[in-house]
Amino acid sequence: MQLALSQIAELVGGRVIGDPDLKVGGIGSLDDAVEGQITFLANPKYSGKVATTRASAIILPPGANGFGKNVVETRNPYLAFAKLLAHFCNKLAPAKGVMEGAVVCKDVRLGADVSVYPGAYIGEGAVIGDRTVIHPNVVIYNDVTIGDDAVLHSNVSIREKCRVGNRVIIHNGAVIGSDGFGYVPDGKKHFKIPQIGIVVIEDDVEIGANTTIDRAALDVTYIRRGVKLDNLVQIAHNCSIGEDTVIAAQTGIAGSVTVGNNVTIGGQAAISGHIKIGDNMMFGGRTGVMNNMDQPGVFSGTPAVPHKEWLKTLAVYTKLPELRKTIKEL
Amino acid sequence: MQLALSQIAELVGGRVIGDPDLKVGGIGSLDDAVEGQITFLANPKYSGKVATTRASAIILPPGANGFGKNVVETRNPYLAFAKLLAHFCNKLAPAKGVMEGAVVCKDVRLGADVSVYPGAYIGEGAVIGDRTVIHPNVVIYNDVTIGDDAVLHSNVSIREKCRVGNRVIIHNGAVIGSDGFGYVPDGKKHFKIPQIGIVVIEDDVEIGANTTIDRAALDVTYIRRGVKLDNLVQIAHNCSIGEDTVIAAQTGIAGSVTVGNNVTIGGQAAISGHIKIGDNMMFGGRTGVMNNMDQPGVFSGTPAVPHKEWLKTLAVYTKLPELRKTIKEL
Amino acid sequence: MQLALSQIAELVGGRVIGDPDLKVGGIGSLDDAVEGQITFLANPKYSGKVATTRASAIILPPGANGFGKNVVETRNPYLAFAKLLAHFCNKLAPAKGVMEGAVVCKDVRLGADVSVYPGAYIGEGAVIGDRTVIHPNVVIYNDVTIGDDAVLHSNVSIREKCRVGNRVIIHNGAVIGSDGFGYVPDGKKHFKIPQIGIVVIEDDVEIGANTTIDRAALDVTYIRRGVKLDNLVQIAHNCSIGEDTVIAAQTGIAGSVTVGNNVTIGGQAAISGHIKIGDNMMFGGRTGVMNNMDQPGVFSGTPAVPHKEWLKTLAVYTKLPELRKTIKEL
Repeated sequence: MQLALSQIAELVGGRVIGDPDLKVGGIGSLDDAVEGQITFLANPKYSGKVATTRASAIILPPGANGFGKNVVETRNPYLAFAKLLAHFCNKLAPAKGVMEGAVVCKDVRLGADVSVYPGAYIGEGAVIGDRTVIHPNVVIYNDVTIGDDAVLHSNVSIREKCRVGNRVIIHNGAVIGSDGFGYVPDGKKHFKIPQIGIVVIEDDVEIGANTTIDRAALDVTYIRRGVKLDNLVQIAHNCSIGEDTVIAAQTGIAGSVTVGNNVTIGGQAAISGHIKIGDNMMFGGRTGVMNNMDQPGVFSGTPAVPHKEWLKTLAVYTKLPELRKTIKEL
Repeated sequence: MQLALSQIAELVGGRVIGDPDLKVGGIGSLDDAVEGQITFLANPKYSGKVATTRASAIILPPGANGFGKNVVETRNPYLAFAKLLAHFCNKLAPAKGVMEGAVVCKDVRLGADVSVYPGAYIGEGAVIGDRTVIHPNVVIYNDVTIGDDAVLHSNVSIREKCRVGNRVIIHNGAVIGSDGFGYVPDGKKHFKIPQIGIVVIEDDVEIGANTTIDRAALDVTYIRRGVKLDNLVQIAHNCSIGEDTVIAAQTGIAGSVTVGNNVTIGGQAAISGHIKIGDNMMFGGRTGVMNNMDQPGVFSGTPAVPHKEWLKTLAVYTKLPELRKTIKEL
Repeated sequence: MQLALSQIAELVGGRVIGDPDLKVGGIGSLDDAVEGQITFLANPKYSGKVATTRASAIILPPGANGFGKNVVETRNPYLAFAKLLAHFCNKLAPAKGVMEGAVVCKDVRLGADVSVYPGAYIGEGAVIGDRTVIHPNVVIYNDVTIGDDAVLHSNVSIREKCRVGNRVIIHNGAVIGSDGFGYVPDGKKHFKIPQIGIVVIEDDVEIGANTTIDRAALDVTYIRRGVKLDNLVQIAHNCSIGEDTVIAAQTGIAGSVTVGNNVTIGGQAAISGHIKIGDNMMFGGRTGVMNNMDQPGVFSGTPAVPHKEWLKTLAVYTKLPELRKTIKEL
């Protein structure tokens, strides 16, 4: 597929400096792009490479030196790169229908143009939206609802009655709706509390490989619109993860936690049970959140403190043996 | 299904105050229960809601104010709630037999009233107990034994020769019996030590989604009766996890660790290799156990210390920069 | 299968002291081996058991007391044990071909003597090497290449275009080639950066159960020859893990990290994004590597410091409340 620079400028929100009719057929990095492709400058420290790239055109931020080349100028070249890449790569495969070897139980409602691969299992009463792709060996339990344009990669499990929105991507092996971890001691052993709630995953969520999200005990575990979860993340029962929140790999969120909107959480972090986290907060990797938090800013450490304080504490921490020596001398 | 209060009192171990013949058809929280249902008071701080709930009857601890309503009095209303919920929800689905699309190899012994879903694979020589449910795309390798009334959720793998007890629940994607992580350096590379032992999971165990339990090198990795493992837990080869021990999500137990009975371990904790943990101990989330421990109590931190000490240490830790300033002034 | 001591000496690189024609039919520990088997002394503290074992022969290090028994003397009895165990156990099962219920799409190239179990799915254009075993419900996406003598255990997913080398073992539920975790904020939400790179896994790699390895954004995530990854490990996009590096369970490596050759990383460790780690380094469990590191040695803690320093710091850390008291008194 070929795109004229004028089309690209429209697609990414920018303007052409040079030949608006010049056509390019792909996008690459400053080093790797070849003639006939477009490249981009995302980091000013590589601006010298603009002069030497073999690409036929360059996406630049306002004010950058184009060295006389054909340029699409836009405020965020990295975002433009992502949009163009999506444009060049995401040629939608034609719908494949329900393939031989897939199992679709009774009372299932399938949307138009779905693709259901061999070995996939869709339980009774499930509803699958238009154009949704169910890869091989995905298992959808009874009475699950899945929206339009969703992609469920191989070996994903969606447990009974859970609901998945439109344009949701779930990577391989993720588990949605396993039982929450709840027991009452009865004096001798642990009596299992039936987990009869569900998980609701709203639109535009992406869920990483082998991530697990438990169903609520009685009501709903919410993953709100636009949430992005990395691989091997654990979301316990009755949590609510707010809109556009991003959580990196191997982080664990204990039961009944509420995370606000637009929160960013680094990898291997942990949030204790029943905690409330406000909107727009950021937490570094491995942060351990033990208390409700609502102030804006970046936080790290266990317990979570402002990131700069944590760096200072860490600096003293590594000097503890010296510090003790000083005290002994005193 | 309707239950009279007298039946409920018998089921949960309690006594009726009010009309023993009053029938209820479900259970809900103080806020959500409606007429015709029963509710419960688990936390004294909500005792005011007993007056305003719409439920037709209430499960109360001895001495609580019933506001003149129909009451089932019992020592542990939360346990009573769990028991009643199980009673109302767990209507056993009728056995479905071996469904089309399931693969049962030769020399498999299937119990009475099993359900084996499409895409499940049961290897040669396996034994499956009565009423056990094998969900879609579960893979059971050769010579595995599974007890009665077990539930294996979709995409679970049970490797060769492992043994699973009665009433065991294994959530989606869990792996039982993958090779232990053992190598000998041969001077140039890592020579793999064949892992020819097995995993034995005793009765009444529950295993979380995507949890992994490695087979022993030569003998047995034991998960004893009544153990509850949350999601994404790692149990390495040759461990023994004692009866009724509970381990929260993302905790890792290194090789050859022995954990006693009735131990509770929080999320993201870790136990170093070859450690022995006594009975009835409790470890907070993220605890790092680096030494044998046998004393009763609650422990946290790395290395694990009594929880109260850890809280004190943490309090000083966050003040380290101030502390250093004080020392400098001295 | 029976082996003469002379054959064993040749197999493990050693010499016979005693009867070279004596045949044994298995290997066991000093305690468990029976007559007709061979045992080994790996740890000098058990040398007394050499006198009392029931085994017919013993593998000993040079200079150890054989108590007049038949001995195979070799420098590394533990390595000899591993080699012998592999010899006794790894009787190769005969190839089973493509079994009924497996799906092999068009344009797939299958090597000689493969075994493809029921429920496995091999996408268009995939290449599978000789003698490779694809267990039930493995999903191989389009255009994947897999080498000779590989073993893919049940429920493994290999995403589009990824490449897997010879003699690679991938345990159950592992995911190779899921999308890297990359987004650009567009002012309102997170715009997904298409992840169009691949994962290359070189020869002789072993990958643990439910481990996840993300595909690169544009080019390649490398797992080099001989790498061993334990269970539930996370390798983010664009990483390169060097030859013969060993990584224990639940460790997370963030994006674009380069790890050298022969590195050892303990469990639950973490490496921050874009870090470079040199060759031959060792990191304890839970180490948090936040900076480029290249010096030889053993490191622990967060940030990573020499292991001995970390132990000293930890010792002071646990005494922090006392230390503060001392300072207050001053």
